[in-house]
Amino acid sequence: MLYDDKNPHGGDVYGAEIELDFSANTNPFGTPECVKRAVSDSLSRLHLYPDPYCRRLTEATAAAEGVGCDRLLFGAGAAELIHAYFGALCPERAMELAPTFSEYSLAMERFGCETVRHALRPEDGFSVTEKLIASVKRERPEALVLCDPNNPTGRLMDPDMKRELIRVCGRIGCRVLADECFMDMTACGKSLVPEIEEYPWVCVLKAFTKSFGMAGLRLGYAVTADTDLLRAMSRECQQWNISTPAQEAGVAAIGDGGITARTRELIGRERPRLSVGLAALGLTVYHSDANFMLFRGREDLAERLRERRILIRDCSNYHGLEKGFFRTAVKLPRENDRLVYEIGKLR
Amino acid sequence: MLYDDKNPHGGDVYGAEIELDFSANTNPFGTPECVKRAVSDSLSRLHLYPDPYCRRLTEATAAAEGVGCDRLLFGAGAAELIHAYFGALCPERAMELAPTFSEYSLAMERFGCETVRHALRPEDGFSVTEKLIASVKRERPEALVLCDPNNPTGRLMDPDMKRELIRVCGRIGCRVLADECFMDMTACGKSLVPEIEEYPWVCVLKAFTKSFGMAGLRLGYAVTADTDLLRAMSRECQQWNISTPAQEAGVAAIGDGGITARTRELIGRERPRLSVGLAALGLTVYHSDANFMLFRGREDLAERLRERRILIRDCSNYHGLEKGFFRTAVKLPRENDRLVYEIGKLR
Repeated sequence: MLYDDKNPHGGDVYGAEIELDFSANTNPFGTPECVKRAVSDSLSRLHLYPDPYCRRLTEATAAAEGVGCDRLLFGAGAAELIHAYFGALCPERAMELAPTFSEYSLAMERFGCETVRHALRPEDGFSVTEKLIASVKRERPEALVLCDPNNPTGRLMDPDMKRELIRVCGRIGCRVLADECFMDMTACGKSLVPEIEEYPWVCVLKAFTKSFGMAGLRLGYAVTADTDLLRAMSRECQQWNISTPAQEAGVAAIGDGGITARTRELIGRERPRLSVGLAALGLTVYHSDANFMLFRGREDLAERLRERRILIRDCSNYHGLEKGFFRTAVKLPRENDRLVYEIGKLR
Repeated sequence: MLYDDKNPHGGDVYGAEIELDFSANTNPFGTPECVKRAVSDSLSRLHLYPDPYCRRLTEATAAAEGVGCDRLLFGAGAAELIHAYFGALCPERAMELAPTFSEYSLAMERFGCETVRHALRPEDGFSVTEKLIASVKRERPEALVLCDPNNPTGRLMDPDMKRELIRVCGRIGCRVLADECFMDMTACGKSLVPEIEEYPWVCVLKAFTKSFGMAGLRLGYAVTADTDLLRAMSRECQQWNISTPAQEAGVAAIGDGGITARTRELIGRERPRLSVGLAALGLTVYHSDANFMLFRGREDLAERLRERRILIRDCSNYHGLEKGFFRTAVKLPRENDRLVYEIGKLR
């Protein structure tokens, strides 16, 4: 499977010996013990096919999110659900932010959907402003993808503006795919999940992968009041798409409320520290609310760090960014210190 | 995720309390110890994304199959690769056997491909005969799916006839998708893998799921000399589609040559015993070469067995079959005895 175009994202620590990976935005605490235990406990059932309906996981997630079981669909990572969304709807034109996570437009392209990009500007710190509402009114796309907090900036939208935008979308018949994969690690983020009944044209995406340090297992979910959409997306997904270890790990993770609180507390402390540390080296660091941040540095920074067995995400392949933009995850204190130290040595 | 149309196959043991599952055709020995150990060993790496290129698994599988690394593509179960195949090629018309595994035509339909069915006849014991060659010449489909041994019959094609068929397909420009997911548990089966360089229009599918008792993990692979096809199929697959536990389990399983030999030996002993046992109850049992078999019985047999917490596969939703056709897996001696005993009580 040696096809170079396969992985445009970060997190590939297998190609060379890597000591520290800041290129993937996963939980800095790693995999919780309850998740490891759940995977161990699933060993005796590996010979069975996974539950195709994810019954226990659905019940546990519905209870934790406060939604009905029929409002949920699970995928092998949020990526599968992004593709299922565009495969199910096949819109002719959809809008996304620029920069944003590249999987949306890959999925649009795959299903023949034209991508309209709303450019976020460096002079606005890449924040989403009222201009997006004007863009949507003018362009009238069939769907809008809102990554909130956005990737690679980690920036949250203003909640009031976001709700106004969503109401505008409802009025003009534009669906909204709200990717909240990093919301749980973002202290002041306000999820749209409690409002899904009010906005049935909104589909929210969330991921266990990132929040619960289980990227190796692949698990995400979609939440929407539009059950016809979920049914159509379900048809786009693989049979038995959620492995037994992933289902069991998900039940364990979502039942442990402490993980999210501990993670938010750490990120809340470490993000400003890392940001100040990088800025003190003369780098331009953009405001972030999440567990990762965007910054500018010398163009060969990622390469030079890789020589020191450290990965950061080179963001030059994001639409709207260019060479010299990088994203780093916020990790544990000594890891963040190490990153600042190594970048300092390269000045 | 409670959508009833999601799972048309067997193996759903989660809906009710089930004691014995004969509806899924997985290895009767269950999950090998080496696979369980590999999954346990992967726990410390679950916070990392899986290797998107499956490097170690590719090397191990290439060595075991005697093919180059660039001849392989992994999927989250063979099902993902079936969809990737039709998604990559988008043929207008493709032919399959009837009855056969239903996922092929689901994938064809999804990508707008017309399904032409070559009917296998009960009076031939549902075996594939020379008539298939005539069918292919007459219908000239763009692709032919050969499930060998076929599902749900477990019947192998005659190897000489199969090779003649493949040469005919090559001459008329018809691609062949050869699903060999059950070949490793079929003693006299002869895989096409050693001949892939000779027949670049053939793509072989194999599954770890069944042979190595790891259905809960999802792992299959495609083997072909057509690297352009693999590249196109790779684009149809999810990012990070193979979880870390599945990759590690695959490396362990394929390195243990003993598993296949032990399984074939057991199946070779138990299949005739189960077949004779069922026939002695007055049921029509069709010839099988694999680890499962097709038979006819009273129409409510599956329901009645389910009341006794035993699952068999009701085959009435297969094209070319009707109510009263059932498939059972061949399992361990005492389990097979139990099935015969329970069916005997229901006469």
